[in-house]
Parts: sequence; structure tokens; C-alpha cells
Amino acid sequence: MQVKRQIFIGTFIHSSSLTKLEYLHNTAIAVSSDGIIVAIEPECDASKAKSLLVPKLGWDSGPVSVEILDISSQNSKFFFPGFIDTHLHASQYPNVGIFGSSTLLDWLNTYTFPLEASLADTQKAKRVYTRVIRKTLSHGTTTAAYYATISVPSTNLLADLCVSAGQRALVGRVCMDQLGPDNYLDESPEQSLAATKECIEHIASLNQSLVRPVITPRFAPACSLPLLRKLGDLARETALPVQTHISENRNEIKLVKELFPTSATGARDDSYAGVYDAAGLLNDKMILAHAVHLTESEADLISARKAKVSHCPCSNSAITSGAAKVRWLLEKGIVTGLGTDMSGGYSPSVLEAARHAVLVSRHVAMDGDEKAKLSVEEVLYLATRGGAEVVGLEKKVGGFEVGMEWDAQLVGLGVVDEDGEEEGSEGEEGNVDVFGWETWPEKVAKWVYNGDDRNTRKVWVRGRLVHERK
Amino acid sequence: MQVKRQIFIGTFIHSSSLTKLEYLHNTAIAVSSDGIIVAIEPECDASKAKSLLVPKLGWDSGPVSVEILDISSQNSKFFFPGFIDTHLHASQYPNVGIFGSSTLLDWLNTYTFPLEASLADTQKAKRVYTRVIRKTLSHGTTTAAYYATISVPSTNLLADLCVSAGQRALVGRVCMDQLGPDNYLDESPEQSLAATKECIEHIASLNQSLVRPVITPRFAPACSLPLLRKLGDLARETALPVQTHISENRNEIKLVKELFPTSATGARDDSYAGVYDAAGLLNDKMILAHAVHLTESEADLISARKAKVSHCPCSNSAITSGAAKVRWLLEKGIVTGLGTDMSGGYSPSVLEAARHAVLVSRHVAMDGDEKAKLSVEEVLYLATRGGAEVVGLEKKVGGFEVGMEWDAQLVGLGVVDEDGEEEGSEGEEGNVDVFGWETWPEKVAKWVYNGDDRNTRKVWVRGRLVHERK
Repeated sequence: MQVKRQIFIGTFIHSSSLTKLEYLHNTAIAVSSDGIIVAIEPECDASKAKSLLVPKLGWDSGPVSVEILDISSQNSKFFFPGFIDTHLHASQYPNVGIFGSSTLLDWLNTYTFPLEASLADTQKAKRVYTRVIRKTLSHGTTTAAYYATISVPSTNLLADLCVSAGQRALVGRVCMDQLGPDNYLDESPEQSLAATKECIEHIASLNQSLVRPVITPRFAPACSLPLLRKLGDLARETALPVQTHISENRNEIKLVKELFPTSATGARDDSYAGVYDAAGLLNDKMILAHAVHLTESEADLISARKAKVSHCPCSNSAITSGAAKVRWLLEKGIVTGLGTDMSGGYSPSVLEAARHAVLVSRHVAMDGDEKAKLSVEEVLYLATRGGAEVVGLEKKVGGFEVGMEWDAQLVGLGVVDEDGEEEGSEGEEGNVDVFGWETWPEKVAKWVYNGDDRNTRKVWVRGRLVHERK
Repeated sequence: MQVKRQIFIGTFIHSSSLTKLEYLHNTAIAVSSDGIIVAIEPECDASKAKSLLVPKLGWDSGPVSVEILDISSQNSKFFFPGFIDTHLHASQYPNVGIFGSSTLLDWLNTYTFPLEASLADTQKAKRVYTRVIRKTLSHGTTTAAYYATISVPSTNLLADLCVSAGQRALVGRVCMDQLGPDNYLDESPEQSLAATKECIEHIASLNQSLVRPVITPRFAPACSLPLLRKLGDLARETALPVQTHISENRNEIKLVKELFPTSATGARDDSYAGVYDAAGLLNDKMILAHAVHLTESEADLISARKAKVSHCPCSNSAITSGAAKVRWLLEKGIVTGLGTDMSGGYSPSVLEAARHAVLVSRHVAMDGDEKAKLSVEEVLYLATRGGAEVVGLEKKVGGFEVGMEWDAQLVGLGVVDEDGEEEGSEGEEGNVDVFGWETWPEKVAKWVYNGDDRNTRKVWVRGRLVHERK
């Protein structure tokens, strides 16, 4: 889709490392008509952008217009990279917040499988998927790694809807030939593989690069060993990414040990990671959701294979899975991002996942490991650069650099006037109140702790405006 | 303030016990012009309200008009009791979300004392207090137990502003004659007591019953023993409620043991609760915030004295204080409510505190105590009935009963239409999406997990409409 050339002027904030945010004030970023960042100009205002930057880029002639968005006069607004949601189930969206007091295995049977099965009805799937795409975009999620269901038509529909909404996505048809109820199971490993290939071919037929297929074994207990091996072969043949769950819940881990003895898998031990490794799935394109209860040697194996982890703190707390030790994962050199994991997680917001990652890390610290605490800067890195690397897009998105694509959000914070009222409210007051004396890092902290979709005023993917608050 | 007679018709939800919500559908609640619930009529629609209920109440004549608010046609809306925030620092509101990686004692020195000291400037205090009252009302907080600062004029101002905004409140002038910086300390126990009395007299002079004074020793480490004893005497003489902090953080507890040896206090042991007890403060009108690390015998003492606890989960996680064992407190028979504890807590929302109370209880459960988990129903009880009992208002607010006062909120959830869009949006979409097949308990769970101030459409205190979303 052809969009206009664009120049954004104001404050840009992004991660320069795990622990540091870089603040680029009075800066201009030029984005080409195909959505690529072509220039980052410091000390630049609108007048300089027009008189110097436009000619320098050769944009002063030709048929494509240049649009300038200048927020430099507003010190409560900034541009931030779009969020990457590295793990969520689009099909479970209607169930967010509905758990009772269940934990993983009974939650699947009570709430999850019945809903997923019902989305074989593409009319219902369209309603749900339209909503989840719109909702996640409104929270600044420019890239999402989606689980759909086992249904081929409705998985294909999810891909179509992402393309049309302009959301960057990995879309995975769920593979599961055991554990599920009779009405929600692949018939055989062969049928599961064939159905997966149908979805891969459908996405290839869309002739675009925003939405990609992802091989999706639900999780080890829901897959027979032959199915896992076939998917391992497929991953090697196609070089496609793979997503699955690992080590979310203690009973699940016990089940994996029972289902996959080393005598069957040929793995060096009966660890959860070992099962995926033995099936040829554990590689540098693999996204492992949760990783709450990994053993030391499993973490070492994951690190050696360069597989990635999606940390899903809201889910891990809500269904009492456990507290993932993110600092420990990072120190092992394991690339980590954030996932909302709807509807194990209750919130569509990566910002909420970031906030809860901070809080959960403090609960890990309460057990005595003071350095477990994650900072605001660190969780924002996980939400952007970290997530981009988890989904294999670190060269394209997650930060503001020449050559990267313009996946970004315009964040606006509320300003309290002298009478204690909201200043120049644009119709919707959020919960972030800036009094005017805050430093920029303090403003960012206020956003992380109290921000919501009301603060995400505009969202772009590859230069295209995909969400705007009225 | 004279308000009109009102009849509310539709679904009312409130706690009938700690573990149960009662759902009153097709019900009418009549509220007198002085804000008292005078009738609860089951199986009642607008027509029956006019033809039968109005005459039965004798409201069909006289000068006072009857206003009817009928939401019975909308199955995504319900009335719920207003929330009780049993612990927050109005003066710290501008700092919400600003902690760095600090814990209690350094957080006080770095962020808190300087801000509180600066509110001696009543112009600044007016700006901050106006904002915090407006913000908490918008989140459905109909009653708030506020800490102000040591400044008498600005504490009095907070009381004035609550009265004029119509928020029910306990307003406490902070007493502290040690630990703080030189520019933010009471000069002596005598001066501290005298200043407190000034505030009590000011509130008495306002001739109203919505806002009450509360005796507020900041916390034991910030008070000399003579000051604590004087405040204990004042509590006995006046029968006023007392609020303070207890056992929030391990270093704080160590400090209390150092500062208050039994040789000085005459307490039976050097426990934190023992210090308050020895000063004559620990009684059935005392609100103890946090109570994270209580020993068994301290909890028994608190229970025996019938003192109350304000559980502040957002704060306890954010500043790494610990995970309070709420189930254990409840089993000890200790009345417990919820507090936002801004700005140790980051959020102005009691609903967020309720949600985080659920999540923290799951972290307690992860350590092996499965029954520690709090349900959605239980945290809503803490947010309403429990909180009301904590602040001594259980006969007036927290539920819908004849003779109680109309402190309530109208909650509206978003409805997703057949195309996946928001149905008949009133201009602001929240994050609760109802698809239409949910049960009422599921709708309530969705509200608890994803609701925010956008779902709180109207708020009343004692019958007066004090907040309405545009």
C-alpha cells in the first residue's frame, strides 16, 4: 500500500540498550513512502525540516507529497516504538478475565477448548478476530504473534484480517492431536501437518510481507511425538518460526515427563526443553512462552540453541503458574520479550504486561534476590527491542534507526492545569497526570505505571496510520 | 445539601457475604432526598415504580420531585456500591508511578518528604488535592481515608475540598516529630498534638457529617514515644478513629525494634503492634495500613483489640515491601479493606487494588498455600463492605440495604456488536468487552480484570451525583 512521505518532529524515546532509554528531543525522523526510516535529524524543527531536510532527501520534487507531524511544542507527548506482543491467543479474546480459580490444565478444559472449538464458525471468528486486532492496535501493539485455532478457514481469516487492518503479525494454526476434547483435535499427525501447510500456503498467496505464518505445536502435552517430529522437519524445510509453550505450570511439567520418557524421545533427559529439542524444534526461530519453572540445564540448552522466551507475567499471576525469573533468563543470554497471553493473561495491553513484569520481578526479589528487580527501562526494552528479536524482526522494528521501519506510537500524557483540571483535554482523560515539574524519565515511569490505551493517540505500522483515537 | 428523591431501576450487585455477590435484577431502589435508601423493591419496572412504589412511599405529593434512572433495558450496566479507599496519601498524588527501585525508607527521603513539605504552599496543595479528589471520585471511590501533610492550613483545605466535592472522607493531619528532614517535622509532641487539635476543630466547624477527622501518627518510627502516648490519650478522649502504618517493610520493623525497646514502652514484647498498644492507640477504631510481615502473636493482638487492616497490594508490590497474607488475616478475624496507598501504590483506583489483590494472593498461593487465593467476589467485598467496616461506616455504606446511604456507582461495560465493533459506544470505549453470552458473574469478573474509570459512568455519595462521565 502506497502511503505518503512523512516527517515526524518532536521527542522520540526508544531503548538504546536493555537498561537505557535514549531521549531524542527536537529531532525529525523522515519516513519514506514505503514506511522506511530514511533520516534521523537532530536539532531540527519544522522550518528546518522543510528548508533543509526535504531537499537533502530529494523530496522537494515528484508526485509524492510530504506530510509533517510536529509535536515539538507539547512536552507531554512523545513517539515510542510500537509494542511487540510475542504471545497471545486471538481465539481466546472473549474469555479475558474469566478464570475462576482454575490453573492451567483445568482452565484449558473448562474455558479454553470449548471457545476455540466454536471458532470453526467463521462468522464468529470474524467477530472475535476483528475485535482483538482493533483492541491490540489501540494499545500500541504493532506486531503480534498470534495463536488462532485448529480450524484452517478461520486461521486463514485471521491472517486476512491482520493484512487488511495493517497489523504486523505471525499467525499460527494450532496443532494438537491429543489432550483436547473429541470435537477439538487434529485427526492424526499427517492431517495436522497438512492443515498447517494449507495455512502456510494461504498466507504465501497473500503476496505481502507484513503477516507471516508460524508453526504452532500447541504445547508438548497436546502433541504426539510423531506430530512434534513432523513439525520439526517442517521447521527445518521451511525455515519458518515456531511458537509453543514451555514450563508454565508444575502439573504440566509432570505430565510432559510422563508422556515423553527418554526411551521414546531419545532425548538426553526427560526435561521439557529436551522434548522439543529431540523433535528438532528447538532452534533460534523458536518462541517459547512462559518458561516459568525451567531447570538450570534446560535454560542452558535453550540458550545454546538460541531459542527465545516470551515472558507473560499477567497470565502467570492470574492462573497461578508461578513467577518467571526474567533476570536469570537474561543473564543466561536468552533473548526475552513480553506476551499478553490472552486469555491466560487478562489484558490486551503490552504496557500492562510491562507494568506487571516490573511488579512480578519485585515478588521474585522479595524471595531474596534483590537484583531480580526489573526497571521501567528494562521492561520497555522487553516490550520493544526484546520482543522484536523474539519474533525475528530486530532489524526492522523495535527502535528508531535509519533503515528500520516506522512501527511507532504517539504517546500523549495528561497535563494538570493550575486549578487541578486537565489541560486542553482531547476529550478523553487518561490516568497519567503530569504536573509539569517531572523529568522525562519520571514522565515515562508515570506512563508505565498508569498509562492505558487512552495515552496511545496514534499508531503506525510500516508508515501506515493504523489506529487513531477520536 | 438538599437533593431530589430518586428511584434507581435495574440490576444491583453487592456483597451478601465475604464470598458471595448478590444479584438483584429488575429491582428498584428508592433514595430519599437526604440520600438514604428507603425501599428496595423486587420485580419492579418504571411503570410499577410510578404507580405503586411512589404512592407507597408517600412521594406522590409535596414539593420534592422524584427522578427515575432506569437502566433495566441494558444488560451491560449495573449499580454497585461505591468503593472505600481505606488508605491513601492525598499529598503524594503527583508522585504516583515514581519510585525508581527504592524501598520504603529511602523512598520516603528521596521522593515523599520533599513533596509533602512543599504542600505547605496552599496554592500548590489546592491544585494537588483538587486533582486527587476528582481522580478518585472518577474511579468510584465514594469514601477515602486520607493522609494530608503536617501543615494545618493545607490539611484543613483538603477537608474543605472534600466537603465541596461531596466525597465522604476521613482527613488526617500527619503527626511526625522524628525521622523526617528538618524542614518537615513537628517541633515537639506538644506542638504536634496542638496542630492536630486545630484540624479536628476546623472540621467540626464545617457543620457536616461527610468528612471526619482522623488521628494520624505517620508511623511509629516517625513518632517519639511521648507523641504516640499523647495521640493515644487524644483517641481515648475524642473517640476519633486513628490511622497509621504497620509492618510494611523488614527494615522498618528492625528500626521499630531499635527505637522502641520494651524497657521504654513497657510493652510485653518489642513487636510493632505492641508499640501502638502500649501507647493506647490499638483499638477498634484503628486503621493499620499494610500489615505485611506481622507475626502470629501480633496478628492475635490486633484481632483481640479489633483493630482493622488496610491491605495495599499495589504499593506492597511496587516498593517491594512483601506479599500480605490476607487469607490469614481474615481467618484471624481481622477486618480488612483495600487501600490504594498512593503514592507507594501507583494507581488511584480501588478496582486496580482489588485486581492486584487477586494477583498477589496467587503469588502467596504459589508458595504452597493454595487456599490463600482470593476470588473476584472476595476482593469486591474488601473494596466495599470490608472497607466500610475498616473506616467504621459499615452501617451506612458498602451495600444496598434499607437505612443505608446511597453511595454508589453506575458501572457500564462495553458491548461488542456482530461486526466486532463497539455497540452504541457513549464516546469512550473501555477495555471490558462483553460479547453477549457471558453470565453475570463472568461480566463482573471481566470488569474486575479489565475495568477502569471509563466503566464508572456515574458516582453518587449520599444521594448526590458527584461524578459523571461526559
